[in-house]
Amino acid sequence: MLEERKAGLKRASELLESSKKILITSHKGPDGDAIGSALGLYHILRNAGHKCIVVLPDSWPSFYSWMPSQKDIMVFDKEEEKILKEMLDVDLTFYLDYNSLSRVGSDFQTVLLEHPAPAIMIDHHQSPDDIAEVMYSFPEASSTSELVFDFAEGLDMKKRVDLSAAKCLYSGIITDTGSFRFSSTSQRTHEVAGFLLGRGVVPSEIHEFIFDSNHENRLKLLGYALYEKLRVFGKHGAAFIALSQTELRKFQYKKGDTEGLVNYPLSIDRVSFSTLITERENEVRLSFRSQGDFDVNEFAREHFNGGGHKNAAGGISKDDLRTTVDRLVQLIRTLEPKA
Amino acid sequence: MLEERKAGLKRASELLESSKKILITSHKGPDGDAIGSALGLYHILRNAGHKCIVVLPDSWPSFYSWMPSQKDIMVFDKEEEKILKEMLDVDLTFYLDYNSLSRVGSDFQTVLLEHPAPAIMIDHHQSPDDIAEVMYSFPEASSTSELVFDFAEGLDMKKRVDLSAAKCLYSGIITDTGSFRFSSTSQRTHEVAGFLLGRGVVPSEIHEFIFDSNHENRLKLLGYALYEKLRVFGKHGAAFIALSQTELRKFQYKKGDTEGLVNYPLSIDRVSFSTLITERENEVRLSFRSQGDFDVNEFAREHFNGGGHKNAAGGISKDDLRTTVDRLVQLIRTLEPKA
Repeated sequence: MLEERKAGLKRASELLESSKKILITSHKGPDGDAIGSALGLYHILRNAGHKCIVVLPDSWPSFYSWMPSQKDIMVFDKEEEKILKEMLDVDLTFYLDYNSLSRVGSDFQTVLLEHPAPAIMIDHHQSPDDIAEVMYSFPEASSTSELVFDFAEGLDMKKRVDLSAAKCLYSGIITDTGSFRFSSTSQRTHEVAGFLLGRGVVPSEIHEFIFDSNHENRLKLLGYALYEKLRVFGKHGAAFIALSQTELRKFQYKKGDTEGLVNYPLSIDRVSFSTLITERENEVRLSFRSQGDFDVNEFAREHFNGGGHKNAAGGISKDDLRTTVDRLVQLIRTLEPKA
Repeated sequence: MLEERKAGLKRASELLESSKKILITSHKGPDGDAIGSALGLYHILRNAGHKCIVVLPDSWPSFYSWMPSQKDIMVFDKEEEKILKEMLDVDLTFYLDYNSLSRVGSDFQTVLLEHPAPAIMIDHHQSPDDIAEVMYSFPEASSTSELVFDFAEGLDMKKRVDLSAAKCLYSGIITDTGSFRFSSTSQRTHEVAGFLLGRGVVPSEIHEFIFDSNHENRLKLLGYALYEKLRVFGKHGAAFIALSQTELRKFQYKKGDTEGLVNYPLSIDRVSFSTLITERENEVRLSFRSQGDFDVNEFAREHFNGGGHKNAAGGISKDDLRTTVDRLVQLIRTLEPKA
């Protein structure tokens, strides 16, 4: 592993040295780690004198919009033409926080596939496709942002991590680790976070930006969901919340408003499998979370045309809300009763 | 500061060397940092060959009861006689996580005042009373648990921090920093946390123990409070939740069930001052939180016979619930309208 890492860094160093214009990309539906790692790397490379552009496939929730130089990001589904022009003289591409080109959406995927520039992948997802000349892929890392720091350190660019870069990387780390609580958090994660604080990051400030930008309706929706809609199957260690379109509208639902809601039932001591069901325009969406052994990736694949990770997955149902809920309840009732 | 710290450590080292039986204490209504620092130090000192006892003034929420050797703690308001006997040959006392003897409650305070053993204070609260021979008091530290590690390191006992000690100290750090988000979190905090993870602490496990031991009713109470009882005064940057005894009973309220509830309104972007009002047997209790400049310590002192820190304080009202709520609303309406 160490040898592989060294060889990768050596090749990356050569690619960087000979490159004149660098493209940084991340995945569709960008989350904190996608934007944080992309902008973090952007600041580091620019500080080292490189010319860079950042392209994301589509837009992101407004609570990430405070990130330094966020306005420099170009959005593929809004500025395709401009981006294609900008990409003409790109001679090195970074794939950040994704392990397969399909994760950028089919249109941007085609563009990346056809582009001649060599690529460097920096990512922490399992089983990456072999799509980049340098595969800086470490699934045991907490976040791609942690790996971007690692990569910079490996290339002797730690001094290029200024406060702007530090804020971005710190954001990526806390969103992907649930503020240092998920099991992927390591001694190294804290070491990196400590370094970023040393650069001037104020943890309470970043947490407020990302986690405390609720509007009143969102908090009331949370309350309503927990008070009126939570159903617990203690014997089976499961719980779910189902919200109809009418209910979502009542709270003037905006993109991101139900983010995190699926985690609340897991805080009940008997519950280790939680589902959030939301009715959308043409489909019913399911979001699954588990603690411990229950594999929601498998569950989502088998029953709801979905997938993901062992403890976090998503699915879709073409049935109506009631039928979907009934099906879930039946499945829950087949689960091993809890001791 | 450095010189002072060195002198303190030198004297502490002498006291430890000559001591035959050590008493470790912490404050009334013990929280994660009180129990975590006390048990953390207990493990470290025992691993170094010292004979120790731990005494806390009263009991603690059940979600701390998994802590290693927690059963060794003696509780003053339950086992006074036994404790007095055990204390006869104590020749060194630690005051952990409190800055004034009044914080242990009047009965235990009298006992400590009359006891002849010299004392070492390890604490991070502001303006400590000068009550210990060694004052290892650093208000800028995130937690007393961080300082216990610091103290152990200063006395060359880092190797005595085993997994049991690490679990306790880690618990203290995350409860006092809101999992590394409060502004007291420093580079050093992450350094210490990283070391503790290196000892084998599994962050997700400890977080589940402490934060995910809800019962269903507690989650429903949270939902009810947010959905039915949240009142927001956006113009004044304030919000509150008031719960009557009847309402608390409806959700079979248990000690600790409203812990953390006062923080939810702060997640609304316009709100920087939040109050939770709960009606108890003979009084109405108020819990205040703020973000930024608004000083709830002052507010609680001036209007509700209370006090605390700048961003977290408590108060009491002898009026009934309705009168108390009316008074709070009037006070909120005098607050500077938000731009």
